Amino acid sequence: MAHSLFLLPGDGIGTEIMAEVEKIIAWLNSQGETDFTLDTGLAGGAAYDAHGVAISEEDMQKALAADAVIFGAVGGPKWDNVPYEHRPEAALLRLRKELGVFANLRPAICYPALADASSLKRELVEGLDILIVRELTGGVYFGEPKQIIDLGNGQKRAIDTQVYETYEIDRIARVAFDLARTRKNKVHSADKKNVMKSGVFWDEVVRSVGKEYPDVQLNHILADNAAMQLVRNPKQFDVMVTDNLFGDILSDVAAMLTGSLGMLPSASLGAPDPVSGKRKAFYEPVHGSAPDIAGKGIANPIAMVASFAMALRYSFGMIELANRVEAAISAVLADGLRTGDIAQDNRRTVGTEEMGAAILGKLKA
Amino acid sequence: MAHSLFLLPGDGIGTEIMAEVEKIIAWLNSQGETDFTLDTGLAGGAAYDAHGVAISEEDMQKALAADAVIFGAVGGPKWDNVPYEHRPEAALLRLRKELGVFANLRPAICYPALADASSLKRELVEGLDILIVRELTGGVYFGEPKQIIDLGNGQKRAIDTQVYETYEIDRIARVAFDLARTRKNKVHSADKKNVMKSGVFWDEVVRSVGKEYPDVQLNHILADNAAMQLVRNPKQFDVMVTDNLFGDILSDVAAMLTGSLGMLPSASLGAPDPVSGKRKAFYEPVHGSAPDIAGKGIANPIAMVASFAMALRYSFGMIELANRVEAAISAVLADGLRTGDIAQDNRRTVGTEEMGAAILGKLKA
Ligand SMILES: CC(C)[C@H](C(=O)O)[C@@H](O)C(=O)O
Ligand SMILES: CC(C)[C@H](C(=O)O)[C@@H](O)C(=O)O
Repeated sequence: MAHSLFLLPGDGIGTEIMAEVEKIIAWLNSQGETDFTLDTGLAGGAAYDAHGVAISEEDMQKALAADAVIFGAVGGPKWDNVPYEHRPEAALLRLRKELGVFANLRPAICYPALADASSLKRELVEGLDILIVRELTGGVYFGEPKQIIDLGNGQKRAIDTQVYETYEIDRIARVAFDLARTRKNKVHSADKKNVMKSGVFWDEVVRSVGKEYPDVQLNHILADNAAMQLVRNPKQFDVMVTDNLFGDILSDVAAMLTGSLGMLPSASLGAPDPVSGKRKAFYEPVHGSAPDIAGKGIANPIAMVASFAMALRYSFGMIELANRVEAAISAVLADGLRTGDIAQDNRRTVGTEEMGAAILGKLKA
Repeated sequence: MAHSLFLLPGDGIGTEIMAEVEKIIAWLNSQGETDFTLDTGLAGGAAYDAHGVAISEEDMQKALAADAVIFGAVGGPKWDNVPYEHRPEAALLRLRKELGVFANLRPAICYPALADASSLKRELVEGLDILIVRELTGGVYFGEPKQIIDLGNGQKRAIDTQVYETYEIDRIARVAFDLARTRKNKVHSADKKNVMKSGVFWDEVVRSVGKEYPDVQLNHILADNAAMQLVRNPKQFDVMVTDNLFGDILSDVAAMLTGSLGMLPSASLGAPDPVSGKRKAFYEPVHGSAPDIAGKGIANPIAMVASFAMALRYSFGMIELANRVEAAISAVLADGLRTGDIAQDNRRTVGTEEMGAAILGKLKA
């Protein structure tokens, strides 16, 4: 059965790393292993330059119609001064919201070959495997009012609103507990319930969902302490569930710990359609568009390829193929190939294309 | 001239570590080096047990009247289920708000003797000296509405409001720039302007204040990236200014990097009184009440003593004495004394009282 993928490479290194995924898809299709139909659109600064908006209506519709969206990265200094509503990030936020992909899964794993690249001591991160489950379509990212008001006396007031309703916390908690069952049966839920009412409420709903998962150990942790503990002793965590804003920060800390930022993928999933059971899905690397190295052919395509592997696993149930793609990544690392961001003594530093080709080579083998 | 200190030891290890500060003050007074009048009150769970509130009106008035408030720490499992408005943290939040101590200075320094205690590689943290300037009386901590609403259909909605007005950002930015001038003339301002209107506004006001400090280098950084960069390469930072919530998290990350959490003090300062020029001030360790080790006599009193040293420096202009207290701390560490939290091979582990006595001994010498 044909599956449709909509590719949004975006800006900066986005196009370069997406090209490597396209080569892998082309080969898989040519072998009859997959039957993906591909379409490509513009997002972020690229869309702004072409259409004056962060994403065109046409591309938005294509994203909504696709079985999965594969996204690169957006942004760069070129667009620092575009109007706020058209800034590159607006594409990302609109896609997440309109696709309804509320469950953002951000694995932070430490590739053994890269344990020394972490700024943490090796023993603290070796074997690290955390899954951050971040709520992605609510909270302060989207709550209204969200505005800057002129108070008229030379003063202005800026407001953002953190809002969560029961169903939003309930469904993300279920995702976390369900995933915990496939891992170590342990969930940490992070909030600031000592200061925020949304934190009190977050904790209340997560605990009540937790009652339906008596086999999963649920721990509460304050978000500031979670950030600390990630630095102090990250291996104490397995699944961590948290809101949109805390998830943004905590997942970045977790990613940085691994020393493998250029390697980390993410999946954002919607609710299953009541009729077809299909869920909208959006896959993107955790890293950004890295304007400083864009166009040089030196970006690390691994997070992008690994995001595609997540699509195989979560959107298409192609578990075995997902495993093979991930194994191919590990194999090239074991062979000593490195892009510049993870360069090491006695290892060979290669560019984006060579790294992509090496991964594809392992798949072919 | 007599200066009044109001001591609020709070809960858990708070009372134990405050006792060591009291001994130092008693000795300084006895030598005629200082002329502090002391009063002590209850805060947090201790106040709740005695008065049914997180802080009594009487103690609140004493805090408002004092030249400086020295605060220990609040909270513990015993009070996990007290009504929300009386939870231990409510004392802290009310004190900060009513004292108007908007400028929270959180130095994250890595004591050379403890560089190996960091989870980061030694070379990344050795010599680390960051000052986080956190806005403390605004933002999502205090904005209204802040409530949980029953929507009546089995659903509730929780709301917190992030609000900042021009003057609040303006004054904290000035504190950061002024402090930067006494250090490395470099400020990073962290926000989420790619997502939050308060972030856009924060950046706008900080930049406009920055124009008055052309000698200080101002860098913008997104809060999630700031968290990452603190882990990746903390020494790139000198002064970091940020809002209440990001400051909560980023200062905890910075503190944890140093490997010296039990050692880090903080000062929270108000605006100078238009007539007397005096500023309200509140000093507290960065660590919490550590209920797990409370009552055992093993807590590290250094952050508490160092908070008192900050009071000497910032409230009373006793710079030389503040330096001597800090030198006394460094000297006992250099002598190899350690409390349990920073225990090391070939160093002597001592309890709270012995550590306090050793610091006082160095002062006397
Ligand atoms: C680019 C930005 C809007 C985004 C976010 O804040 O969610 C990014 O930081 C992320 O984590 O995906
Ligand atoms: C105890 C809590 C209310 C407080 C805060 O969130 O500000 C603490 O985490 C801190 O950083 O001082």
